[in-house]
Amino acid sequence: MRVLLTNDDGIFSDGIFALFEEIKKDNEVTVVAPESEQSAVGHSITISSPLRVKKVKKNGNFFGYAVNGTPADCVKIAISEIFKKPPDMVISGINLGANVGINVIYSGTVSAAAEGTILGIPSMAVSLNTLKDPDYSYAAKFTGILSLLAKREGISAGTVLNVNVPALPAAKIKGVMITRQGISQFAEKFEKRIDPWNNIYYWQAGKTVLIDEDIDVDSKALANNMISITPIHYDLTNQKEIEKLKNWEISVNCGDAN
Amino acid sequence: MRVLLTNDDGIFSDGIFALFEEIKKDNEVTVVAPESEQSAVGHSITISSPLRVKKVKKNGNFFGYAVNGTPADCVKIAISEIFKKPPDMVISGINLGANVGINVIYSGTVSAAAEGTILGIPSMAVSLNTLKDPDYSYAAKFTGILSLLAKREGISAGTVLNVNVPALPAAKIKGVMITRQGISQFAEKFEKRIDPWNNIYYWQAGKTVLIDEDIDVDSKALANNMISITPIHYDLTNQKEIEKLKNWEISVNCGDAN
Repeated sequence: MRVLLTNDDGIFSDGIFALFEEIKKDNEVTVVAPESEQSAVGHSITISSPLRVKKVKKNGNFFGYAVNGTPADCVKIAISEIFKKPPDMVISGINLGANVGINVIYSGTVSAAAEGTILGIPSMAVSLNTLKDPDYSYAAKFTGILSLLAKREGISAGTVLNVNVPALPAAKIKGVMITRQGISQFAEKFEKRIDPWNNIYYWQAGKTVLIDEDIDVDSKALANNMISITPIHYDLTNQKEIEKLKNWEISVNCGDAN
Repeated sequence: MRVLLTNDDGIFSDGIFALFEEIKKDNEVTVVAPESEQSAVGHSITISSPLRVKKVKKNGNFFGYAVNGTPADCVKIAISEIFKKPPDMVISGINLGANVGINVIYSGTVSAAAEGTILGIPSMAVSLNTLKDPDYSYAAKFTGILSLLAKREGISAGTVLNVNVPALPAAKIKGVMITRQGISQFAEKFEKRIDPWNNIYYWQAGKTVLIDEDIDVDSKALANNMISITPIHYDLTNQKEIEKLKNWEISVNCGDAN
């Protein structure tokens, strides 16, 4: 396959390099990734400033293209300007830290894969469930195998695979679970501080609170030492609410408005 | 009610001012909005730099708090640091330009309302379907009425109302339609340019392509001169795909990985 690799930790991160080394064994790989870390950018795109594309080397060899934008920008510009014809697959990652529960909506990693899907290319996002001392080797190998399987089986149009891998050696991984997105969420707090000029500033901190109980939910699969694969899409409609809202008596008559 | 107003066009935009003037007639209003325009930021939050909160005046009077962050940051910091107890409702807008179809995922306006919902507060996003010469007066009045109705009827937990109003005088608005999110999408193109130093840069441009046919879809309601209200949520799980993925024979055995 011709594969586009991207991420949100930036082109110089270890996670994308581990993925590159693995995926290139079976595929023709092009790396287009943010030049700087872009965590928590969600599904943002850059429309109010120019984007630049720079070639980047690693270990003395050409590695890929760095873009001064978001993960979604990288996928858009790669497909529009760098690839002559669209790639066969977009893989985003390997992210340092899980992307599960409500947090998925803040995830640049997942949004890059979503952008691939929106542009009609089978796409997956891969994250490793640790924030320190990551060993990407198993997750990279698993992604290699999963991508070949996905090529064979086909990812349905409009669907992104959101893959989260436990940070464990292969022997300790209990299996794969196809999951739902859970409701675990980032419980933020703002640290109020004083700068050297005596002005107040706030720094957003916090941690993810795992509140999922059901076994078939993303964070719970990870907690059970299983790889979580959640099929996600970008139809945000809450179908169940439609009938309820139809019962509201909403008037378009706003009195004196015209 | 105690209402938090925010937006993504920035605290100095006309859309939030029109909303403020209307909502304050029946409610206690606090404005916390980005100090600069934040369109297309999607659901991003700022974790790698400090946030500052500044009081802002309009017409000589205190108007609200400006934050050097994204719409989602504004809602988080408002509820965490500015409100003593959470507001009764979050209203985001009025946005200059519709937020319909796939574009909803790039919308800072909608993400601000989503953040309110995630934090447990009934929330809605309001957008006006024009990009130039906006007259916010009808949309502001409609939002005032809808917010009171929503207070009475109750917005279900986890649901955001994504409201899009045609840019028409009241007499030409044909009604309200409860809609699904459509698949109209931004067809981007990158303009390749040369800067004064002879370096290449790209500027992302493009326009929304309306491809929805069904009458009960957001963009189609607008095209039919109706107000569109879509109930959205943040469970991105594509339920239909779960059973299909369970049939893939996914192995966790990655050969020599350990």
